[in-house]
Amino acid sequence: MLTDIEISRQTKHRPITQIAEQFGITSSELVPFGDAKAKIKLSILKRVDDNLEGKLVIVTAVTPTPFGEGKTVTSIGLTQGLNALGKRACACIRQPSMGPVFGIKGGAAGGGYSQVVPMEELNLHLTGDIHAVSSAHNLAAAAIDARLFHESRMAADEYRELSGQTPLNIDPEKILWRRVVDHNERSLRNITVGFGDNNGPIHDSGFDITAASELMAILALSLDLKDMRRRIGQLVLALDTQGQPITAETLGVAGAMTVIMKDAIEPTLMQTLTGDPCLIHAGPFANIAHGNSSIIADRIALKLADIVVTEGGFGSDMGFEKFCNIKTRVSGKTPDAAVVVVTLKALKANSGIESQNDINQPDMARLQAGFANLKWHIDNVSQYGAPVVVAINRFPTDTDEELEWLKARVLKTSAFGCEVCDGFSQGAKGAEALAGVVVSATEQESDFKFLYQLDENIESKLLTIAEAGYGAKGISLSQDAKRQLREIKSMGLDNLAVCVAKTPLSISHEPKVKGVPTDFELPIIQLKINAGAGFITALVGKVMTMPGLGIKPGYLNVDINEDDEIVGLA
Amino acid sequence: MLTDIEISRQTKHRPITQIAEQFGITSSELVPFGDAKAKIKLSILKRVDDNLEGKLVIVTAVTPTPFGEGKTVTSIGLTQGLNALGKRACACIRQPSMGPVFGIKGGAAGGGYSQVVPMEELNLHLTGDIHAVSSAHNLAAAAIDARLFHESRMAADEYRELSGQTPLNIDPEKILWRRVVDHNERSLRNITVGFGDNNGPIHDSGFDITAASELMAILALSLDLKDMRRRIGQLVLALDTQGQPITAETLGVAGAMTVIMKDAIEPTLMQTLTGDPCLIHAGPFANIAHGNSSIIADRIALKLADIVVTEGGFGSDMGFEKFCNIKTRVSGKTPDAAVVVVTLKALKANSGIESQNDINQPDMARLQAGFANLKWHIDNVSQYGAPVVVAINRFPTDTDEELEWLKARVLKTSAFGCEVCDGFSQGAKGAEALAGVVVSATEQESDFKFLYQLDENIESKLLTIAEAGYGAKGISLSQDAKRQLREIKSMGLDNLAVCVAKTPLSISHEPKVKGVPTDFELPIIQLKINAGAGFITALVGKVMTMPGLGIKPGYLNVDINEDDEIVGLA
Repeated sequence: MLTDIEISRQTKHRPITQIAEQFGITSSELVPFGDAKAKIKLSILKRVDDNLEGKLVIVTAVTPTPFGEGKTVTSIGLTQGLNALGKRACACIRQPSMGPVFGIKGGAAGGGYSQVVPMEELNLHLTGDIHAVSSAHNLAAAAIDARLFHESRMAADEYRELSGQTPLNIDPEKILWRRVVDHNERSLRNITVGFGDNNGPIHDSGFDITAASELMAILALSLDLKDMRRRIGQLVLALDTQGQPITAETLGVAGAMTVIMKDAIEPTLMQTLTGDPCLIHAGPFANIAHGNSSIIADRIALKLADIVVTEGGFGSDMGFEKFCNIKTRVSGKTPDAAVVVVTLKALKANSGIESQNDINQPDMARLQAGFANLKWHIDNVSQYGAPVVVAINRFPTDTDEELEWLKARVLKTSAFGCEVCDGFSQGAKGAEALAGVVVSATEQESDFKFLYQLDENIESKLLTIAEAGYGAKGISLSQDAKRQLREIKSMGLDNLAVCVAKTPLSISHEPKVKGVPTDFELPIIQLKINAGAGFITALVGKVMTMPGLGIKPGYLNVDINEDDEIVGLA
Repeated sequence: MLTDIEISRQTKHRPITQIAEQFGITSSELVPFGDAKAKIKLSILKRVDDNLEGKLVIVTAVTPTPFGEGKTVTSIGLTQGLNALGKRACACIRQPSMGPVFGIKGGAAGGGYSQVVPMEELNLHLTGDIHAVSSAHNLAAAAIDARLFHESRMAADEYRELSGQTPLNIDPEKILWRRVVDHNERSLRNITVGFGDNNGPIHDSGFDITAASELMAILALSLDLKDMRRRIGQLVLALDTQGQPITAETLGVAGAMTVIMKDAIEPTLMQTLTGDPCLIHAGPFANIAHGNSSIIADRIALKLADIVVTEGGFGSDMGFEKFCNIKTRVSGKTPDAAVVVVTLKALKANSGIESQNDINQPDMARLQAGFANLKWHIDNVSQYGAPVVVAINRFPTDTDEELEWLKARVLKTSAFGCEVCDGFSQGAKGAEALAGVVVSATEQESDFKFLYQLDENIESKLLTIAEAGYGAKGISLSQDAKRQLREIKSMGLDNLAVCVAKTPLSISHEPKVKGVPTDFELPIIQLKINAGAGFITALVGKVMTMPGLGIKPGYLNVDINEDDEIVGLA
């Protein structure tokens, strides 16, 4: 079989203006970036306001493994399959971060015959949104330090006179706003800034990956430009020497940050290998952020399509939980069905059984033991009230015996349906069976329930997520977290949602504990105020907000060839 | 009169596809980014290879002052004026950096009725090239530190086995490659990275503004994608523990860096207020880098236009010198005429006479004293052999008496001609007289001479620039610079060009010395190898490669208004 980039390149994509027109987007609502991608102006939302809304399908997965479960492959394959069945279906996915693209994972455009094309345009700059987020984020960081610098060099009166501003008295030890870069940059995790003559004050800082920026969450959760402006104004950047919050509004930088992100708020239209529409917008990771593409993209797609397929990052304990408890709460649009992606390999790897055997070989004992993880995710998703369809993403080495056993076993659970999906090697055709079941699922009654209510206090919300969302016995709070909890209460932010930052590699906080962890307490290490995004981030265990490059980094393979084409992506 | 952004917004720009077509660019050579800007594919160079080349006019200026001399206003006005006279003229300018845009200066789109439109698209992300440069630059920085990290954690044999790579033994104290961000970020000038468990080794680093990245110079000097790939491979990123250079090629990151900059190599087409073509490409500053837009943009424009107007940053000692001695040497295209922009205010401010009088008021004594600076720049430009035209950029407060005196005085110098230009308030019409003289100038014989030859050694080249380029008595080398000179010789890089990084605010290295400094020695503090760009940067005096935000930063004024429009830019 051809590689992803070969398949992407040999398939002549259709002009994006055609894709748009066919999907119901007028040319005046489209801002083409070349012939393969285009931004969609938000003015469309007004025009299509009276359209009926389509069904929303959220794709999630079992606990991820190093083999890759193919959630995006399945989402794109499903979208292609739905269109093949005559439905107007659109995929809504996140923009890939260049960190993983050049780090280890390769691209995030799907793969095989279920891809968004051209994959290199999706995986690199796309239409510049991530760059805009980085730039806006780092302007705020520069603004904080510039303010510190100028105020530190003169008396308050003089500062007032020269600047026309009131001194803010930022506490250099209480700067909450770090910096971001869209790379895997281990060495920038913790830095000290301000050395040299007249560059101070010296203080600690650090970089997160851009996907972890609160601005990325804001981009994904904003309803329109004014809402984004309002949220950016609320960002808490630092505390002053009295411990009072200093926002982007107070610092006077919220307007400029919004201006930098003014185009980023428009989703980007691309297409699948079969010419079906795909909206790409925002890219928060699901371990360190809320892990879902934007509300704006969903809204546009829902007004134009019969079915919209979107995905939450990592397993259902991660992106799906946040989809339900964070994104849905803002958007008001609850899921009509959920797809849980699984592979035979993922179940074997989640079995907890050590084995020297090739994971591609049949091994019913490991498969059966690993099934518990899938069962847990089915139950976890089911508790939110939408019908669950399990998609078994097929690999060439999979045996019919194992696939049949798994399907039969799934059908004995609370899942609405289960199908093998072979979108990777067969494209739309390989996903038609799954598409059929998903359509039926969306026609069922759905009785959506949030896991927690916003008017509970933060501690209670955390306890609910830990117990009902992860199967923990309870939570423990570090001294830091307890102090931060008091600060949050005193700022009146107790009614925000909660976004848990934890390892995606286990349902628990211990990456090595596979299967269905029980008998554990969730350790809350830190609480971070995201007043702009509208949630409190709870760091659980040791969570990296900045990845590092591995010993065999992906960038080693990437180059241009004799024909000036890109090689080595994905 | 309306503000720049009001004029920009009230002028309905024409579809960029029309501008392109009229300029001779086919639709298959164009990659539109919306309807106001488009990238031009490099395939055009092959198609137009047989076209006759147009004339190249380089716009420079007297020593800059805080009042702004209006070099871009004049370049754009001149382009509009030339087109009004029936010439096919195109402007080639640099992409503005967001650092100054949100710092102090505002935009760089020209101003008044001589602007590139829409100015906010030029001043913000444009088509993403600066972001691409930042990203490629910082990937290399991440790659160096990741390599250091992995090699430091295990024995050489183990590293070899796990990574499949040969250990490089990078010396963490000899990392030459800093990081970049496109903001004014004083606090990041000098930082220490690598703190925390498993994030090391700890070492010093720092950020420059992206315009100062060697990649920005490479973008501006590359002839095609393969040439850019080759140059990126030659970047010297660090020294190993034996003092040997480690290049981007050795580190295995050159291919990925090129891939990140693959679209950036295509210039962006925009238009002036009167619908004339303007190519925007690359953005090196002229104080800390070579300060000229790209060779590729010039080449495309020269094949399609009768006259191409480009500009070198700051005064003629800065961008113009580098245009001649660095850019022209690579491109092979020498200037057919040079325009020196001056204002009455600039001469008064350069007079060296302290005065409490409003600089907008007539003051013949100061004007006459300040004339020496203009005379120096005319002579400086003349020595390169192209005819010199002086453009007096008119301000509303200028009196006819002073303007006439200045024009008459200029005509007694070696300048070919002199005209008052009022492109700012009158657009094309205000620049027609200047355009007429410039056309005549380009019809003169031009006898271009480099200031130095590449086969002289670095010290000799520096001496020539100091003496013939700045009027210095000689140069002095710091201990650092002497050591670096020896390193450069031992690496066989003695035949590279020289790019002087010095203050633009004086012809000398002392920003406060106005007029025509004499009797000074140029202190070379540091020499920096730019093997990819193909020059040695000589830091003269205290030169900042990262600006800082002022006490009244520009971002304070920038916001969106009720109609979701940008306010406060420029």
